[in-house]
Amino acid sequence: MTTPHGEVETPVFMPVGTLATVKGIPQHLLEELGVQILLNNTYHLYLRPGTKLIRELGGVHKFMAWERAILTDSGGFQVFSLNELRKVSEEGVQFRSHLDGSSHFFTAESAMEAQIALGADIIMAFDECTEYPADRARAQASMEMTARWARRSKDHFEAHKHEVPWHDERNSARQALFGIVQGGVYPDLRAESARRTVEIGFPGYAIGGLSVGEPRHLTREVIECTLPHLPADKPRYVMGVGYPEEIVEYAAMGVDMMDCVLPTRAARHGLLFTSEGRLNIKNVRFAADQGPPDPRCKCWVCRRYTRAYLRHLFTTGEGLAAVLNTAHNLAYYLDTMRSVRHAIKLGELSGLLTEVRSQYAARAAEKQPE
Amino acid sequence: MTTPHGEVETPVFMPVGTLATVKGIPQHLLEELGVQILLNNTYHLYLRPGTKLIRELGGVHKFMAWERAILTDSGGFQVFSLNELRKVSEEGVQFRSHLDGSSHFFTAESAMEAQIALGADIIMAFDECTEYPADRARAQASMEMTARWARRSKDHFEAHKHEVPWHDERNSARQALFGIVQGGVYPDLRAESARRTVEIGFPGYAIGGLSVGEPRHLTREVIECTLPHLPADKPRYVMGVGYPEEIVEYAAMGVDMMDCVLPTRAARHGLLFTSEGRLNIKNVRFAADQGPPDPRCKCWVCRRYTRAYLRHLFTTGEGLAAVLNTAHNLAYYLDTMRSVRHAIKLGELSGLLTEVRSQYAARAAEKQPE
Repeated sequence: MTTPHGEVETPVFMPVGTLATVKGIPQHLLEELGVQILLNNTYHLYLRPGTKLIRELGGVHKFMAWERAILTDSGGFQVFSLNELRKVSEEGVQFRSHLDGSSHFFTAESAMEAQIALGADIIMAFDECTEYPADRARAQASMEMTARWARRSKDHFEAHKHEVPWHDERNSARQALFGIVQGGVYPDLRAESARRTVEIGFPGYAIGGLSVGEPRHLTREVIECTLPHLPADKPRYVMGVGYPEEIVEYAAMGVDMMDCVLPTRAARHGLLFTSEGRLNIKNVRFAADQGPPDPRCKCWVCRRYTRAYLRHLFTTGEGLAAVLNTAHNLAYYLDTMRSVRHAIKLGELSGLLTEVRSQYAARAAEKQPE
Repeated sequence: MTTPHGEVETPVFMPVGTLATVKGIPQHLLEELGVQILLNNTYHLYLRPGTKLIRELGGVHKFMAWERAILTDSGGFQVFSLNELRKVSEEGVQFRSHLDGSSHFFTAESAMEAQIALGADIIMAFDECTEYPADRARAQASMEMTARWARRSKDHFEAHKHEVPWHDERNSARQALFGIVQGGVYPDLRAESARRTVEIGFPGYAIGGLSVGEPRHLTREVIECTLPHLPADKPRYVMGVGYPEEIVEYAAMGVDMMDCVLPTRAARHGLLFTSEGRLNIKNVRFAADQGPPDPRCKCWVCRRYTRAYLRHLFTTGEGLAAVLNTAHNLAYYLDTMRSVRHAIKLGELSGLLTEVRSQYAARAAEKQPE
């Protein structure tokens, strides 16, 4: 995948950098980990420091000193997470800031405006993230509104895309707007949503409305039934997933892009993803464990530090705990996707999938306290 | 200065890594910053994870994956900071943990035992850190007890120094025990303390009991009157100082070693030390400032990030703020000491001192809010 800020090898896992920072990790260490694209959250940057300021400063790449690719979400998912604080209409979403309760209004047009101001390489259509559970009538109405908002998103984007902070007429590199498929857990609604979104026409498509509380088997089923309705020659992006065994599985199904707070958020809670499954570093059994966090991992954390030291940092509340745990978890996720890409080339993806599944199944069987 | 874990160029500033971590900074970045020696706090490591555990794991160098030099304090300063929670006798100090209120007893012997278990390159005699203000009688009694504890510290150390975790008979490298001079703000008591400590005989001497609330001019006066009583051919270490202009001044007076939480703690509060003086990064005037934190600094933070971004990270409570601010402040302190060493070689130290003083005086004159 080619973006205005470099090539991205797919399938790719995109770390989440909500407020223009992957929590705790300096940008040069993200580069060393091999991060080619990361995600910023429009809702959060809209509130602080403000999309207008970031536009004035030359866009979010320059703001956060990151020269590689960036994707922003539309703000829709975050706004819908506000629950009590929002009110949806055909025009858009009225919501209150989680920070100070101030009132704001997002529309397809203003969401495009915010994302154009930020200037990410890939931006997302404004959608309604349908909650789970939602009955068929609700999921259908929500999906149809998302389709109308997708149209409005594209129209506004086409009229204003030259306003991207780094826009340069001599340079053919352009910001890309992706469409989002909704439809709850209903295969026919997903198919219709995909058809209507493809009809509008985008350079890439996302499957949204997942990881909103549905059982994990439903997540897979929705992805499985939706993918065939999206063009295989355009990037297909599943938003908000997943566990290591899931990202391998979804990649095997044909998903090109995924993002998730899991590796970074879990790290801050002391949960490490390793070739031996999940590992809760605060467990007392690691107090004198001189082994590396993951014996098969070659990241700079595993090459230098012991489980005993990481446990000490976490249990004493030291800031370095989050830094090291996050760096390792990202290395694990990125290595896993690197293995996926390698296995695809060799036609051995099913073997890798079996291996990753067994790593996590074995650990689950141990009933490790978490 | 040669230690079992490498050469240390003096005069040197030692970053504080209380719990076997310089808060937020991975060890390889400390190496890149040029840190040759850092300080760990015995009191904190004694409580968590315990000096016994660190000994079992091979000592604190191995524990924190740091192959360069380490100095530990005796625990005395920390214990004396506990105020209400401690009770001092000739034998030692009874104190309660600040964590769980549990009762502990430190003596000259047990402080040596703890520091031998940790295995730092340089360890400190157990002293009573005299409070400020203290009248002459109190300062004298305290200084005399410190002298008796110094004797006991040395006796215990000599009898047990082979118990250092990395002790190797074939290797001549040895842990070194430094003595500490007390005596409050009374020049004759300081002189007597120095004389008695030198009489016991140590490979290095510290001036303790400073940065305990006394006015800054008294700190300088005590250092000035004490230094001539300490052998110039042994390292002379002033504990717990200071501001940039102070560390240059003290180095000019002949101090070889200093440590202070200031650059790291101030960083976590958004205060940067720069060639333009102190800078409070949360100030709204930096919101759109695209300049580097310090235009004259060549550190990896100043080469990549803007004041606007650092302000954003700090005001949003992002963990990366502490990491970047700390890295810069350490770079500034280490660069300053590098300049001091260079100026000493060229015989231009007074020029450097004038320059650093004016940087901080100019900024103070601006009455910048902090």
